[in-house]
Amino acid sequence: MIRINENYAKLSSSYLFSEVSRRVAAFKASRPDAAVISLGIGDVTRPLTPTVVAAFRAAVEEMGRDATFRGYPPELGYDFLRSAIAETDFKARGAEVSAEEIFISDGAKSDTANIQELFAADIRIAIPDPVYPVYVDTNVMAGRTGPLRDGRYGQLIYLDCTEDNAFIPDPPKSRVDLIYLCFPNNPTGAVIDRARLTAWVDYARAARAIILYDAAYMAFIRDDTLPRSIYEIPGARECAIEFRSFSKTAGFTGTRCAFTVVPTTCMAYDAAGKPHSLHAMWSRRTATKFNGVSYPVQRAAAAVYTPAGQKETRELSDSYLRNARLIRRKMDALGFACVGGENSPYIWAKTGCDSWEFFDLLLAKAAVVITPGSGFGRCGEGFIRISAFNRTERVEEALARIEKIAGELPRPV
Amino acid sequence: MIRINENYAKLSSSYLFSEVSRRVAAFKASRPDAAVISLGIGDVTRPLTPTVVAAFRAAVEEMGRDATFRGYPPELGYDFLRSAIAETDFKARGAEVSAEEIFISDGAKSDTANIQELFAADIRIAIPDPVYPVYVDTNVMAGRTGPLRDGRYGQLIYLDCTEDNAFIPDPPKSRVDLIYLCFPNNPTGAVIDRARLTAWVDYARAARAIILYDAAYMAFIRDDTLPRSIYEIPGARECAIEFRSFSKTAGFTGTRCAFTVVPTTCMAYDAAGKPHSLHAMWSRRTATKFNGVSYPVQRAAAAVYTPAGQKETRELSDSYLRNARLIRRKMDALGFACVGGENSPYIWAKTGCDSWEFFDLLLAKAAVVITPGSGFGRCGEGFIRISAFNRTERVEEALARIEKIAGELPRPV
Repeated sequence: MIRINENYAKLSSSYLFSEVSRRVAAFKASRPDAAVISLGIGDVTRPLTPTVVAAFRAAVEEMGRDATFRGYPPELGYDFLRSAIAETDFKARGAEVSAEEIFISDGAKSDTANIQELFAADIRIAIPDPVYPVYVDTNVMAGRTGPLRDGRYGQLIYLDCTEDNAFIPDPPKSRVDLIYLCFPNNPTGAVIDRARLTAWVDYARAARAIILYDAAYMAFIRDDTLPRSIYEIPGARECAIEFRSFSKTAGFTGTRCAFTVVPTTCMAYDAAGKPHSLHAMWSRRTATKFNGVSYPVQRAAAAVYTPAGQKETRELSDSYLRNARLIRRKMDALGFACVGGENSPYIWAKTGCDSWEFFDLLLAKAAVVITPGSGFGRCGEGFIRISAFNRTERVEEALARIEKIAGELPRPV
Repeated sequence: MIRINENYAKLSSSYLFSEVSRRVAAFKASRPDAAVISLGIGDVTRPLTPTVVAAFRAAVEEMGRDATFRGYPPELGYDFLRSAIAETDFKARGAEVSAEEIFISDGAKSDTANIQELFAADIRIAIPDPVYPVYVDTNVMAGRTGPLRDGRYGQLIYLDCTEDNAFIPDPPKSRVDLIYLCFPNNPTGAVIDRARLTAWVDYARAARAIILYDAAYMAFIRDDTLPRSIYEIPGARECAIEFRSFSKTAGFTGTRCAFTVVPTTCMAYDAAGKPHSLHAMWSRRTATKFNGVSYPVQRAAAAVYTPAGQKETRELSDSYLRNARLIRRKMDALGFACVGGENSPYIWAKTGCDSWEFFDLLLAKAAVVITPGSGFGRCGEGFIRISAFNRTERVEEALARIEKIAGELPRPV
């Protein structure tokens, strides 16, 4: 008799975004006239830029001609893309990362989900709260968490992100082996400075721990004192794996391309204490379980690194940052304590009631959708995440509606 | 201290295709004048068809316009593609598969690699020998195999595919829980008929086992008495998951699109014997670890199901089948006992020496590359796999060179 992986039964059954969709659908059914505006999910709304489309189209044409057709891509990515990334995203910023250390993939979600396979079953894992649910759920599936009790897994170490630490956790007092960090943060929009990130790198080196650094939102950083990559911090090449994506940087959520950096100097250990190269292990994992990213998609991604591509994608993130500033200012003015919205497309706002209650109020009275903070973890209770990913005129309309009913919205005391 | 997944140390260190590449590179370095012809790796050589290119390009254009831009695709696939597949590949052939049971992915390699995550760690797994290495290696990484000894893993049940059973294994006498089958077979090119496949389905139902049926090469079946899908066999909806790909069907090895069928009637069991839906588990796995396939790629794949797309892709596989017939006839005529090359792009030929010795001979004397059978498992020793994926004129040239030195090649006695 075939038996299942019973760890799946430990997963929290309600998935945040399905519950949001369910409530929005019910509202639309009861109020078919209402024009709902979503500042909920973190999906881009602006099209691919002209330079990217031109490269994408040209590569599609190549695939249709005998002389230029390409079969299986290299599993780890085409060198034209890996080199462009190494040059522009890292070397030009003083971070030492080579093309060979860059692995091209179909998405940062896949990579942050799959990376845990490289590690032992009984390592100690630190996870921020609130958090992107993928980090937790993939470790649940792998059997590393124990059962869920009162919304938390007994074998995870939670890093509470609250007003007290400005939503940026410090390294824990206890020993951990694997640490998930995400900056600019999803969902809070908080950003980490060099000093705080250096403290994490120092902790990881001393503990021989690995930091999984999710930098999917790095394109929104405008403050030049902030690190865009963890490899701008000395010592990070020994202890950090970084995840990047074209999704938010260049509007690739529907096109699918991302990459992960695994430095050749990054080691993990066997039970006898012998070091093993995580670069070699991730290469083997990738070659065994993946067949590379679509050639035209890799050409589209490479176009982001041309001078025109850099200018156009900068304008893309500028436009979302303008929305973010509008949201942040309005929510501040209405008396909701906020973080994020600067160097980040997300605004994390404190409400005066429970997250789902606030969600329901905003939907019923303003036909505006946000994301309830409690869906990202226990520390998210009482907060909401507002996303800047929408057209400016819709963001403005949503904010006008919120202002109009602001008197009816519970504010923090 | 972060510790590794030590199962990686159990992987066989030499990877077949890297060793082939190494030897070819060494030969080219020593004989820069030689024009090497590869009938080795199973990669397509003919371009995407005009209908596919037109749909691909049109979708790229859509991604560049405000009104038609699309963000995150549905994780399980767009309905336009899932419905076209269900209609054309299954319902039209009398196999009951609905659009909701089809999961769109970036490749059958990813899916056949990832599916084992749904099952318990201590199930009993049957694997053919010779075999596509991904089935084995992904279970090694997951800790289900024990260590490698004399080229085999102690905890796997090997299904020997030899001349005695015409390279088609029968169900084992012992109990197994998970069975990997691939027809038309890679590497042997053998095909399974309805009676033999029915025996497997009956075995699996009686044992409450699951068959993982890799049908990546189904487009090469021309004999209408042969099943193209396992769901043409009564009862298969209770015990089989099927993997399909556009790679060989439509030349998508560089474009990347595939799909997996998980019927809602397919169950696996917890330790208490309670059934769980594998469809629900694979949905959860996919939504957690994957963000869907690129929208333009899904449009390109859907174009395969238009009347023009069907005609063009049929012509593609026809052309490779013509090559396969040429190879099969010549090898038969030269006295090498063969299987495959009919309803399949691979020819599995018996030699009179060890696989690598024959590989080296053919490379040195004819500058022709094939794949040594021993790289696919112990039962592959003494055999070679010849691939029909090349241009006809090159196949003809390779065969002429082989004929010329045939007297120097060890033949089976």
